Amino acid sequence: MPDVPLNFSISEYEERIDKTRRAMESAGVELMITVDPSNMAWLTGYDGWSFYTPQCVLLTLTGGPIWYGRAMDAKGALRTVFIPECDIWFFTDDYVMTTERHAMDLLSQKITDQGWGSLRIGVEMDNYYFSAATYASLRKGLPNATFIDANLLVNWQRAVKSEQELVYMKRAGRIVETMHEMIFDTIEPGMRKNDLVAEIYHTGITGADGHGGDYPAIVPMVPSGVDTSAAHLTWNDLPLKSDEGTFFEIAGCHRRYHCPLCRTIYLGEPPLKFLNVEKAVLEGMEAGLEAARAGNLAEDIIIAFNRALNKYGITKDGRSGYPIGLSYPPDWGERTISLRLGDRTVLKENMTFHFMTALWSDDWGFEITESIIIKQNGPELLANYPRKLLVKK
Amino acid sequence: MPDVPLNFSISEYEERIDKTRRAMESAGVELMITVDPSNMAWLTGYDGWSFYTPQCVLLTLTGGPIWYGRAMDAKGALRTVFIPECDIWFFTDDYVMTTERHAMDLLSQKITDQGWGSLRIGVEMDNYYFSAATYASLRKGLPNATFIDANLLVNWQRAVKSEQELVYMKRAGRIVETMHEMIFDTIEPGMRKNDLVAEIYHTGITGADGHGGDYPAIVPMVPSGVDTSAAHLTWNDLPLKSDEGTFFEIAGCHRRYHCPLCRTIYLGEPPLKFLNVEKAVLEGMEAGLEAARAGNLAEDIIIAFNRALNKYGITKDGRSGYPIGLSYPPDWGERTISLRLGDRTVLKENMTFHFMTALWSDDWGFEITESIIIKQNGPELLANYPRKLLVKK
Repeated sequence: MPDVPLNFSISEYEERIDKTRRAMESAGVELMITVDPSNMAWLTGYDGWSFYTPQCVLLTLTGGPIWYGRAMDAKGALRTVFIPECDIWFFTDDYVMTTERHAMDLLSQKITDQGWGSLRIGVEMDNYYFSAATYASLRKGLPNATFIDANLLVNWQRAVKSEQELVYMKRAGRIVETMHEMIFDTIEPGMRKNDLVAEIYHTGITGADGHGGDYPAIVPMVPSGVDTSAAHLTWNDLPLKSDEGTFFEIAGCHRRYHCPLCRTIYLGEPPLKFLNVEKAVLEGMEAGLEAARAGNLAEDIIIAFNRALNKYGITKDGRSGYPIGLSYPPDWGERTISLRLGDRTVLKENMTFHFMTALWSDDWGFEITESIIIKQNGPELLANYPRKLLVKK
Repeated sequence: MPDVPLNFSISEYEERIDKTRRAMESAGVELMITVDPSNMAWLTGYDGWSFYTPQCVLLTLTGGPIWYGRAMDAKGALRTVFIPECDIWFFTDDYVMTTERHAMDLLSQKITDQGWGSLRIGVEMDNYYFSAATYASLRKGLPNATFIDANLLVNWQRAVKSEQELVYMKRAGRIVETMHEMIFDTIEPGMRKNDLVAEIYHTGITGADGHGGDYPAIVPMVPSGVDTSAAHLTWNDLPLKSDEGTFFEIAGCHRRYHCPLCRTIYLGEPPLKFLNVEKAVLEGMEAGLEAARAGNLAEDIIIAFNRALNKYGITKDGRSGYPIGLSYPPDWGERTISLRLGDRTVLKENMTFHFMTALWSDDWGFEITESIIIKQNGPELLANYPRKLLVKK
């Protein structure tokens, strides 16, 4: 076993592999090819910003996982994964950014050489890192294989967190608390938005309680004024204004584990509509959290949330939450369960969610959210920060 | 025209659209669907961290571009693009993160409704944001269309930069200079790596000369010691050690325009091999820059670079540079031209490249790079920072 600093015990990686294999068997998959960087890290420990060239982890029903990627990133695998060097496969740089050949052509050859060319192969059809060309190359290179859409097969195995994962997520929770404390202390009218974001990054990467921060899978989204009507704007270098609201959609991150937490700050005397929305969201949050317990369904949280909102004449149609944990860009959600009407997934102990109770209208947006661990008798908060509209005059 | 702060004049956007249309005509494409966030921004001004759900820009041979994405991001389009509201199309949240329907099913319907269902449609087959499922949905929804792989069609149009783009890239250059100055002033043995990265972010987002920093499309890659053998490791929270080298692969970014610049710092007395590699790289850099002029070929830079390296018994097989400019994660390269043997693209004035003269071996890595603008008589440096192995004792 290589001498690398792993974030989890070998036995935890083995349990993950066993769990994934059981899911593969249920889905009739004999060889899983996972390109999702979060799945790759979860199964092998691999960590690097290398997902802009083709890479994947292969897993059959026996033997260990295999890492495949660019030669220079195979060096990175040697420094981060628990698997032996012989199971780290690579392609040379003449496969990189060229229209003449595809890195998946070579992978097909290697799969064939292993005698796996006729297997039932699970692929992640709708993953960011599984392009149409990637699939076309595999189809062409493995004409005897049967391809199965196993898009979220590995992601689903990540839903219930281990004790060690929860340790990392709670550290991320402490980090995001510290970030919000700093924001409230620092923000003032006239300050350039980017200068505040510089402080957000500084606090987030410094970390908390001696635990360093990692890069969140999404950058800070911190719009002000009318821009808050849009959910995913980032920042500019203009001064913050009085009599405007700004929301802070940010996450703490530690060893790739996330704790998102959003708050809204109003600089000045908030208008009545903000105070009304605050009341509705806080009541909805309370009601939703009350329903966030093992044995309930994902939609139960939203039914309770919506019932409270409706009393204030507010309806929210969209998704109001998603599972969180280990992530790489471009998303810090796990993309499996949705907290919305119609999602009847049974909640289990130690699932973790970002309960995304934000509201957006035509000219304003308002975000107060919580990240939670599902427990038998209700949720545990991953971060503890005042749950209210923050006002600075 | 909506009242939004655009980074470029309307006429510049129009020129870009004209240029893209000429390329579409050459490729026999009647409707281009571009999902690359950099292409979407370049054609319309759109800016937001929303590429984790389906989105694209549509362009036919007449009329204006159309933006398509999630309803909550259509709000972001209204705040960032120059195109009128009627050309901002969207899907509702029931299309998000579900296996029941795909956002591209609805787009096919909309395309059909426009009478475009039988066109020759260009798609970006190997883009991160064009998954196998995205393509399958379009194929199914538009049975009468002819699909053409127009993977880098728009990217190629971005190669030669406008004067305004160069203004932003030079600002990014000033930002990355400031970042490297700060790193050299701050770094010392015993400092936790993440604390140094916190300062890197702080300096990068603060910006320089009054121009704020944006998030680079790649996070800082700053490995030390043996980890430098791997190109794309990020950071940890362990203390920096004496007698080790650390490379800093970072970029300044302003309004999404990048200037990458890498340097290596040795804490202590550098071993002879570092000094030898430094000599080789600097000589190779000089030779390569000498060849980096309009009219020469991309590979001419590398032929000159390699000739110098070979004198020191060093060979480099990989790609040694790529075009840079406007970018979104996961890559700050444009993925068109490669600075490597065999790439016979003719260099044009105002093309911009990261000349990536890094070397990696089994137990070390060494990075001194430059970002350049191609001019008639040689390159102009986007950033000016001492080009040498930096040593701190």
